Amino acid sequence: MEEIPEIRVPLPECRPLVVKGTQASAIGALLAGCRHFFGYPITPSTEGAELMAKLLPSLGGTFLQAVSELAAVNMMYGCGAAGRPAMTFTSSPGFSLMLEGISYMIGAELPGVFVDVMRAGPGLGNIGPEQADVKLACRGLGHGCTHALVLAPSTPQEMLDFTMLAFDLSFRYRNPVVVLADGYLGQMTGKVTLPREIVEPGLPAWAVSGDAAHRGNLVCSIELKELDQEAHNLKLLEKYARITEREQRADLFCCEGAEVLLVACTTPARMAKGAVRTLRAEGIAAGLFRPQTIWPFPVKQLLPLLERAKRIVVVEASEGQLEDELRLALSHAGVPSGLEIGHVRRMGGVLPSQREIVNAVRRRRPSRKVVAA
Amino acid sequence: MEEIPEIRVPLPECRPLVVKGTQASAIGALLAGCRHFFGYPITPSTEGAELMAKLLPSLGGTFLQAVSELAAVNMMYGCGAAGRPAMTFTSSPGFSLMLEGISYMIGAELPGVFVDVMRAGPGLGNIGPEQADVKLACRGLGHGCTHALVLAPSTPQEMLDFTMLAFDLSFRYRNPVVVLADGYLGQMTGKVTLPREIVEPGLPAWAVSGDAAHRGNLVCSIELKELDQEAHNLKLLEKYARITEREQRADLFCCEGAEVLLVACTTPARMAKGAVRTLRAEGIAAGLFRPQTIWPFPVKQLLPLLERAKRIVVVEASEGQLEDELRLALSHAGVPSGLEIGHVRRMGGVLPSQREIVNAVRRRRPSRKVVAA
Amino acid sequence: MEEIPEIRVPLPECRPLVVKGTQASAIGALLAGCRHFFGYPITPSTEGAELMAKLLPSLGGTFLQAVSELAAVNMMYGCGAAGRPAMTFTSSPGFSLMLEGISYMIGAELPGVFVDVMRAGPGLGNIGPEQADVKLACRGLGHGCTHALVLAPSTPQEMLDFTMLAFDLSFRYRNPVVVLADGYLGQMTGKVTLPREIVEPGLPAWAVSGDAAHRGNLVCSIELKELDQEAHNLKLLEKYARITEREQRADLFCCEGAEVLLVACTTPARMAKGAVRTLRAEGIAAGLFRPQTIWPFPVKQLLPLLERAKRIVVVEASEGQLEDELRLALSHAGVPSGLEIGHVRRMGGVLPSQREIVNAVRRRRPSRKVVAA
Amino acid sequence: MEEIPEIRVPLPECRPLVVKGTQASAIGALLAGCRHFFGYPITPSTEGAELMAKLLPSLGGTFLQAVSELAAVNMMYGCGAAGRPAMTFTSSPGFSLMLEGISYMIGAELPGVFVDVMRAGPGLGNIGPEQADVKLACRGLGHGCTHALVLAPSTPQEMLDFTMLAFDLSFRYRNPVVVLADGYLGQMTGKVTLPREIVEPGLPAWAVSGDAAHRGNLVCSIELKELDQEAHNLKLLEKYARITEREQRADLFCCEGAEVLLVACTTPARMAKGAVRTLRAEGIAAGLFRPQTIWPFPVKQLLPLLERAKRIVVVEASEGQLEDELRLALSHAGVPSGLEIGHVRRMGGVLPSQREIVNAVRRRRPSRKVVAA
Repeated sequence: MEEIPEIRVPLPECRPLVVKGTQASAIGALLAGCRHFFGYPITPSTEGAELMAKLLPSLGGTFLQAVSELAAVNMMYGCGAAGRPAMTFTSSPGFSLMLEGISYMIGAELPGVFVDVMRAGPGLGNIGPEQADVKLACRGLGHGCTHALVLAPSTPQEMLDFTMLAFDLSFRYRNPVVVLADGYLGQMTGKVTLPREIVEPGLPAWAVSGDAAHRGNLVCSIELKELDQEAHNLKLLEKYARITEREQRADLFCCEGAEVLLVACTTPARMAKGAVRTLRAEGIAAGLFRPQTIWPFPVKQLLPLLERAKRIVVVEASEGQLEDELRLALSHAGVPSGLEIGHVRRMGGVLPSQREIVNAVRRRRPSRKVVAA
Repeated sequence: MEEIPEIRVPLPECRPLVVKGTQASAIGALLAGCRHFFGYPITPSTEGAELMAKLLPSLGGTFLQAVSELAAVNMMYGCGAAGRPAMTFTSSPGFSLMLEGISYMIGAELPGVFVDVMRAGPGLGNIGPEQADVKLACRGLGHGCTHALVLAPSTPQEMLDFTMLAFDLSFRYRNPVVVLADGYLGQMTGKVTLPREIVEPGLPAWAVSGDAAHRGNLVCSIELKELDQEAHNLKLLEKYARITEREQRADLFCCEGAEVLLVACTTPARMAKGAVRTLRAEGIAAGLFRPQTIWPFPVKQLLPLLERAKRIVVVEASEGQLEDELRLALSHAGVPSGLEIGHVRRMGGVLPSQREIVNAVRRRRPSRKVVAA
Repeated sequence: MEEIPEIRVPLPECRPLVVKGTQASAIGALLAGCRHFFGYPITPSTEGAELMAKLLPSLGGTFLQAVSELAAVNMMYGCGAAGRPAMTFTSSPGFSLMLEGISYMIGAELPGVFVDVMRAGPGLGNIGPEQADVKLACRGLGHGCTHALVLAPSTPQEMLDFTMLAFDLSFRYRNPVVVLADGYLGQMTGKVTLPREIVEPGLPAWAVSGDAAHRGNLVCSIELKELDQEAHNLKLLEKYARITEREQRADLFCCEGAEVLLVACTTPARMAKGAVRTLRAEGIAAGLFRPQTIWPFPVKQLLPLLERAKRIVVVEASEGQLEDELRLALSHAGVPSGLEIGHVRRMGGVLPSQREIVNAVRRRRPSRKVVAA
Repeated sequence: MEEIPEIRVPLPECRPLVVKGTQASAIGALLAGCRHFFGYPITPSTEGAELMAKLLPSLGGTFLQAVSELAAVNMMYGCGAAGRPAMTFTSSPGFSLMLEGISYMIGAELPGVFVDVMRAGPGLGNIGPEQADVKLACRGLGHGCTHALVLAPSTPQEMLDFTMLAFDLSFRYRNPVVVLADGYLGQMTGKVTLPREIVEPGLPAWAVSGDAAHRGNLVCSIELKELDQEAHNLKLLEKYARITEREQRADLFCCEGAEVLLVACTTPARMAKGAVRTLRAEGIAAGLFRPQTIWPFPVKQLLPLLERAKRIVVVEASEGQLEDELRLALSHAGVPSGLEIGHVRRMGGVLPSQREIVNAVRRRRPSRKVVAA
């Protein structure tokens, strides 16, 4: 077995593009060297797939619309096993259908990038933006001891950057990576600056490929002996711990000296940012803590802020899925009590408005009473 | 629309049966009036399905082995929509495949009982017992704002009782219910006493059935207008709150005066019970707090015990999935700090042994160091 | 192994029903004791399935809409292997999808009744009546050495009678039987008299059923040794020869003394009958030879007529599929030359009109020139 | 709409290859410019697919193992609609599964090459060589008015040549083409000379492709109005007639002055050729008439020989499927009676031996009595 290392190639400076979030993500994938797309169309993720379909053939790549999400995720498995960067675009119901396959990829330690442009649910729901799959991506990623890095962009630029990053992390840790966007961010047009380097992927030593050096490799997720499976799970857990140690990412806005912290990601973070500006103008010491990884939750960046801030308001387009990630992270970190956690929550494709957030901070209570489940 | 109420029919007393856990569950389903089974065979759940296949025809019922778990869950949807009690047996990978359908059932507010006899994962794993799907059942039940009552039996008797109960709760709340067993419990033989009453199901007013009163009913999970979907989600959240208020269940063993509480469910709870006996004999004030519902987590029954007990040891056949449910429940309950949470964890089909548990309590530290993810 | 014989039960005389052709076929199936339906809806066959869906539950039977025609035909296989009468309704594209499964049923010698209500093709075509699947049913019934009795009704009464007969023949010969109708006949309403006896099916000795006598039976279509497979095929060929010897059926109208014979089946036979009346009134000695089995083609009934009739006009709603069956039968029968074969052919959902047929006979040439392929 | 014409590129002379029949076919496809393979593995066709999987990536092509034969044939449809040469390898049960899709391709007039390496059937059968799908390919090619050119190679060289030819014919007539081999021919190793020219495919005017000239094209097989569908079928029939007129192909061996003609194709033709040599050495005026197209049956080449030859012996590895094609062709050609048709037939993976054939000709009767069905 031998590894062919990836190469970083300089990209001549060029003018920024103006594209949709999903398209920015597709471009990021291509710049990261991804040449294989497997998927099944679903609104509001389809424009990303569409762009891949347009560009991949001329780049010698493969765009494949599978007969279903199940077929797609198993093709992701195969492509990952071959050591090639592969991606899919999907949205909430489609993501549910991929969970068995994702568990198999995690078990077999295979890379692959899943861009889930979340819509409103449960069930068929509608195509409006909702942060409906946070718990699914962070806690329920298929059966067994599973985790994946979950990146949460909130601008088209981050859609590009985080998708590129996702490939890097996916191969570094041999694990699927989820890019969690929402329907609004997917459709939103923005200016996107291209990176200074692009990637020509190599071939990992473990890949099952056709040459003599890689033909003998074996990739699977079965361990018939209990102790072997336990050892395998411990190995996975060590990897999760390594990821948790190294890959927590957050963006801090006006957090210095903040007494109340808004916590928000993807599109709701945009409204939260506006709210912080308004509140600061009013003299209220508010800041925005924006997780860029929601698994692992960036508690390392949060803890120092809690020395001053005794109040958190989680702003979500869901019933509290991000808040639960925060609560778990705080619980594991042993944060002493005395912290107040409030929230602003909208659902069903409705996004929290800047005004709702400002009011919630002013009034010191949630804009809408939802019993925490 | 009109409801045909269910009838409770007395069952003559008869001698206890000696059956496997999966068979006890199947018998419970039949006694609850379930006459429709849809599933796809997967070890270690298959004996339950097998018994249904044997008995349903002579009871005028339908046993259907579908072409896949996807087909099975959608048949559950259809049968639930018709207002008839339906069930499936599955195991971890099969359960992952059902998540999209479960989200649709939750969205459409349909009853249905899912008995997941968990095996070791992720991926193919092996058929040994693991509590691998706790986070999947409690947190990751498909996309969107989803929750289901999750019952956790730990004896064949409870396999029967909780399966009967599952049908009752499933229709009461118009929501799927999960019975979460593990491979050991599924295969374990035990004495099972039949109930004194069995159920002849009625027909709910909302059911889509062929008579004039029910033909006009509509069941679906689509709400195209964002505010309608939000209202629907709020309605679901109110239901979850009602369930959380009313349906928390736990079994307490030697919890009076306990200074250290073991928390465990399904098969590991059996070893924990033995450990409590040993520890009590040694003079250590240990007790077993056994959640019988793991969603909602029975924090109501736990809180009073925490006035005295300042130490919890979670005993799991997983990497800490139950512990996270506990931590979330404590966080939402606002439990003050000062509580120590340790654990005993085995994985891969290995169960925690009584000796490991006893030692962990004695030594005041986990038997095996696993970094909490 | 032991056989439970079927029982014939007298049916009290009742007034004729007025039903569609597909419904008459469904009623025939029920009277023949069929209690299992597996299918996938497709116009113009759906009303038959619909009636089965309505009636089967109250008769203790099973109506199952499968996820696809493939799933349906494999359920037919399973039900046939269990020795129970099963049926499906389908139409041309759906019938194509069932051919692999039908070949397996033939190989494993299993009964099952397929009612194909033919529509216009190829491909998606339209839902108009066409005799599009004659060659598929008679020549192309899946891979390998395959044949099935193909019954061709031309009235709602025959839809009922031939469906009943199909079950009888299917079990007698342990082979699928095809009832070939067309979209017009399927939708046509007519008066239907019920039979004087209905059937309560038994259980064949070879059936794979749950009791001690049948549990050991094996049903499959694999023969790994070439000579075994050849012996199996010879056995099948002997069966086909037996069917060919015994089961040729035809209806003769004004054939005595006929000098020109119209040959037609299903709906076009109705127009042909009218044409014969007109022609006879004009003094032309025409007759209608209507095959009721199109495989085997009823050449036995035809040969005596050819002593006088030297001219045949095949009337078809296809490009000549029935004519090819006639030509093959004549070739095998060694019919001496001197016979003239003309035709009237319409396609695409258009039926040959009585006038076209009359003109074709008068003019001694086909009404529409189609090159024989 | 505009057409990009294909280009013929000279191939430098190189030494013959020694390869299996399936591999020769794969090489032929590549030399014909085919860069898209869609299929599902099935013995004994898999080596062809395997070679495509090996070579296509380095040629910028796509090899796709679909989730099933159904998925594969629908990808063939899509690729054909895009005007690109696509192929599949399959074997009998797999071919049955493709028939619905083939009917759609015929209806939509799409090119595509199907190499069916026939095995013994019906049902699962075994993997031995049989000419089991002759009637399926020639008569039962899915529902509706369907026909496709069926090429019958009998050497590895012809496997290559006929596969190349198949692409040419498939695009010329906008119709699928079937290459019908058998399991023996597929596995047989032989010397294969490469052609002097290879093909760089163009793009037909009708293709649905991404550029402005082709984006507006529409491909489908639906015609809702009956008269439109009939007109479409008449157009198809004209095409079939054109094919029948122009594309009949046969190879004649020792047919001059022959009094008895052996008729055989694919592997049985090889034994028949040996038999002719033996018979000629004995002074018996035997010849081999080998159809290279079995649809259309090359009756044009046969008729002149029948002035002298009054006896035909059809040599088959089936129950008489080729003989029926012969009989139909003779019937349509109006061949006067007085011709004797005998046969040598083996089945189940057993091939007719040279000795059996010689004996059959000597004795003037079939070596094995099979009742003609």
